[in-house]
Amino acid sequence: MTSASPRIAIVGAAGRMGRVLIAAVNQDAESELAAATVRPGSSLAGADLGELAGVGRLGIAAVDSLEAVVDDIDVLIDFTTPQLTLSNLAFCAEHGKAIVIGTTGLSDAELDELDSYRDQVPMVFAPNMSVGVNLTLKLLEIAARTLGDEGYDIEVIEAHHRHKVDAPSGTALRMGEVVAAAVDRNLKEHGVFERVGQCGPRDAKEIGFATVRAGDIVGEHTVMFATEGERIEVTHKASSRMTFARGAVRAARWVSGRSAGRYGMDDVLGLEDISGA
Amino acid sequence: MTSASPRIAIVGAAGRMGRVLIAAVNQDAESELAAATVRPGSSLAGADLGELAGVGRLGIAAVDSLEAVVDDIDVLIDFTTPQLTLSNLAFCAEHGKAIVIGTTGLSDAELDELDSYRDQVPMVFAPNMSVGVNLTLKLLEIAARTLGDEGYDIEVIEAHHRHKVDAPSGTALRMGEVVAAAVDRNLKEHGVFERVGQCGPRDAKEIGFATVRAGDIVGEHTVMFATEGERIEVTHKASSRMTFARGAVRAARWVSGRSAGRYGMDDVLGLEDISGA
Amino acid sequence: MTSASPRIAIVGAAGRMGRVLIAAVNQDAESELAAATVRPGSSLAGADLGELAGVGRLGIAAVDSLEAVVDDIDVLIDFTTPQLTLSNLAFCAEHGKAIVIGTTGLSDAELDELDSYRDQVPMVFAPNMSVGVNLTLKLLEIAARTLGDEGYDIEVIEAHHRHKVDAPSGTALRMGEVVAAAVDRNLKEHGVFERVGQCGPRDAKEIGFATVRAGDIVGEHTVMFATEGERIEVTHKASSRMTFARGAVRAARWVSGRSAGRYGMDDVLGLEDISGA
Amino acid sequence: MTSASPRIAIVGAAGRMGRVLIAAVNQDAESELAAATVRPGSSLAGADLGELAGVGRLGIAAVDSLEAVVDDIDVLIDFTTPQLTLSNLAFCAEHGKAIVIGTTGLSDAELDELDSYRDQVPMVFAPNMSVGVNLTLKLLEIAARTLGDEGYDIEVIEAHHRHKVDAPSGTALRMGEVVAAAVDRNLKEHGVFERVGQCGPRDAKEIGFATVRAGDIVGEHTVMFATEGERIEVTHKASSRMTFARGAVRAARWVSGRSAGRYGMDDVLGLEDISGA
Repeated sequence: MTSASPRIAIVGAAGRMGRVLIAAVNQDAESELAAATVRPGSSLAGADLGELAGVGRLGIAAVDSLEAVVDDIDVLIDFTTPQLTLSNLAFCAEHGKAIVIGTTGLSDAELDELDSYRDQVPMVFAPNMSVGVNLTLKLLEIAARTLGDEGYDIEVIEAHHRHKVDAPSGTALRMGEVVAAAVDRNLKEHGVFERVGQCGPRDAKEIGFATVRAGDIVGEHTVMFATEGERIEVTHKASSRMTFARGAVRAARWVSGRSAGRYGMDDVLGLEDISGA
Repeated sequence: MTSASPRIAIVGAAGRMGRVLIAAVNQDAESELAAATVRPGSSLAGADLGELAGVGRLGIAAVDSLEAVVDDIDVLIDFTTPQLTLSNLAFCAEHGKAIVIGTTGLSDAELDELDSYRDQVPMVFAPNMSVGVNLTLKLLEIAARTLGDEGYDIEVIEAHHRHKVDAPSGTALRMGEVVAAAVDRNLKEHGVFERVGQCGPRDAKEIGFATVRAGDIVGEHTVMFATEGERIEVTHKASSRMTFARGAVRAARWVSGRSAGRYGMDDVLGLEDISGA
Repeated sequence: MTSASPRIAIVGAAGRMGRVLIAAVNQDAESELAAATVRPGSSLAGADLGELAGVGRLGIAAVDSLEAVVDDIDVLIDFTTPQLTLSNLAFCAEHGKAIVIGTTGLSDAELDELDSYRDQVPMVFAPNMSVGVNLTLKLLEIAARTLGDEGYDIEVIEAHHRHKVDAPSGTALRMGEVVAAAVDRNLKEHGVFERVGQCGPRDAKEIGFATVRAGDIVGEHTVMFATEGERIEVTHKASSRMTFARGAVRAARWVSGRSAGRYGMDDVLGLEDISGA
Repeated sequence: MTSASPRIAIVGAAGRMGRVLIAAVNQDAESELAAATVRPGSSLAGADLGELAGVGRLGIAAVDSLEAVVDDIDVLIDFTTPQLTLSNLAFCAEHGKAIVIGTTGLSDAELDELDSYRDQVPMVFAPNMSVGVNLTLKLLEIAARTLGDEGYDIEVIEAHHRHKVDAPSGTALRMGEVVAAAVDRNLKEHGVFERVGQCGPRDAKEIGFATVRAGDIVGEHTVMFATEGERIEVTHKASSRMTFARGAVRAARWVSGRSAGRYGMDDVLGLEDISGA
């Protein structure tokens, strides 16, 4: 982290994630909200960023181009589209800025292009920027290693809103992979994704998944380790996009002033330094 | 309820359920533990019932035949086997005793034979004697009727121990049927028992089921009604066989001294008198 | 409900609750978003209501006076300040509009003034417009009446965000009062609000309260009925202001076209028609 | 662990914990149930240990003295009284046996006497033998260290049965101490044990405790780390004395054949080898 607070620009301020990012930077004592962009022609250009985000007037107006604020910013936070993200990377390379990227859905070609900036731009790129999710994965690894061969059944339960189209969630699968690896099992072999009818007693090596889809649940994940007499449960509940926004701001603070490179949330949080038994 | 405390006999005192029934009667202020039987030849015949149940010496010894205590008892509680239960019904008919039956797994022929005693024996026969489960079904009916057409998604989540061989549990299915009926849906059509892969967004009329199998979980059921902004959850957690034992004792108090007939837990609890909107 | 969809005006569209109300009306198929006001002089006057609420352009601009839209609206929804609400009631009386009032913090004098409009204005006034909270209170009443004297311990657990200044929450206390009344106890006598140190075993008639304050929890309430062998829990979780907004929209549909009177959420939901044992 | 299965003797087989210990040893594939004692004169002397524990006949009769089985056993498991435990330690010292001690309530003088055997007897002595509780403490330490200064509120919620006389539980306090130490706070200064009335907004450094007392809850502990946007919860639920029994059996396997010394559960589980960031 640099000694001064990094000056942050939010790309895509009119979107839901953009508004949350404005609020997250605004409430962080160690970073400064310097600018935010809306798409050219939006009725929100010129609107006060604080009023836009619903946090009260801040005295900073939304702009429709990064060029207009190039001298006022140190690091971008970008949760937009692959195409826009790549053009923002070019902007960072040209002007010596850092970037935190939460954009998803990049094709392999787009990922290659993103990666090509790793020697020019300090960037944090992570599929899930939640501090809590990344910590939870580490706790699960330690729990699974301690309980692994002692008769504890492992189950993953996740709940998401009614609009989610896939099951189990990507995060649930990643949790399953982490615990499977810690107990030397293969999730492809031992993952159980449905139980209907006369399915017989549970196999001791199963890793079961249960899925709930309802209402507006942002995302809840529990991994349960249960045996006769006790249960240990590690749970993550996202209550709003703020979980991703706060992780992004923490990443922005961390990456600002660092040398060029492509980093992940484990680097930001220092979690790979914790080693299990 | 009769004015005096009913004198209760437990059949099958050496089994797990029998021991719990002893403890349940012992702690109920309004009934009296009069006798308990073990199978002929058991090493536990003559053992103190309290020591057997782990509740301290009670000064009553286990017997190996009901005939020996016929004048000391008013009502039997029987969670044993179909064959033994039918012979106990004959005993009740002959000697004018009442009976509470929690035995499961009766064949159609055995059910017919059981039913043939309805004009001679006051009996409570219920697949699940838990007071809480029966109350929960009533709460679910009211909730579903109030929320039904207002955009609330309905999900049933259940968890049981590793040995359970079927999924979802019979109780979970019954909960699903109750809420489906309350919102004029057919569970066969709208029940969703698995979600794997690209299953698309949730249909508004779905009633989803999620199943967890782990450790020693006696039985947990939650029905969730969720929409944008809120969730209502009704949960039942059985922590031990005591839930069934207590319901059985409440049934024994209720049925003792009543006229012959075949009753259910709704009769015992008076729940059918609560009518929804 | 009138045959046509009621045309709704949101008062105070720039506030957090106002934005959520816009989204709630917008997604309700049976009502129409007709107008929304911001305070005179706001930088958001003229902004598109959909962009303001973050739900995409709707083609309706925010106005800074109700007079400008008086012919386009049937019912107001008002979660603002006591003073503004009273002036809006005068507007409704003059122009023959209905109103749904979620404003809190009215003084006794302000309540009297509000009440003086009951013969001129159809109004729904409720301290908590959540459908789920009002349903939950009804479920708790039925549960308490069924379990009351059968050895079930009653506990109320609530969690709210870090900024909440009082404990337990008003809703938790109301839940406590409802269950206390159902089992013929007095909450003042039997409510237990702290347990610290050597406090001895629980009294059977206690109604305990436990309070959690953390993060951004919008509001979670659980009432637990627990005895040996089982627990029944009824839980309400608010995930956003949408829970109140949706209740307000349901109230607006219900009150539009009705005769003058002061109504509550029980009227809107028809819950008083459900009678216990 | 020695190459052969350790032969285990249970002291106090007629008590609730003794019966559970019999079941726990019986179901552990890597240890052998060799003997179990009841108090001299008990009506259960000579009873089959399996029938006593409710797991089916095992063909081993309860004895009323350890002397009678001295050549058949390697390690004792003792959850009894301080006085009996000290006399069992003398037996172990004389006959070269190991011991696992779960007895609680020892006075300082009794603790000194226990400790005096550390050079003669291999012993595991732990206030809480649950594997899950000990693991949970380690997970909490890592979580607190990662989240400590990033605006996460910490709350400890615990629930126990109606008979528990103190609050919060000893385990809850220990969890509080572990997280306080990890974030450089003093629990005496920052622990908050009651919130009633107008208590004001939460202080960022508070560690709050909430207590539930109801029914037959064996013991549930949750530590919540919550901030705007997310929560991480680590939960331990004991469902029966089996949690302590299984930990004791794991300790018995570990300590059998080891050199004399006084060990704790951290030694048994290898948890002190996991180091945080």
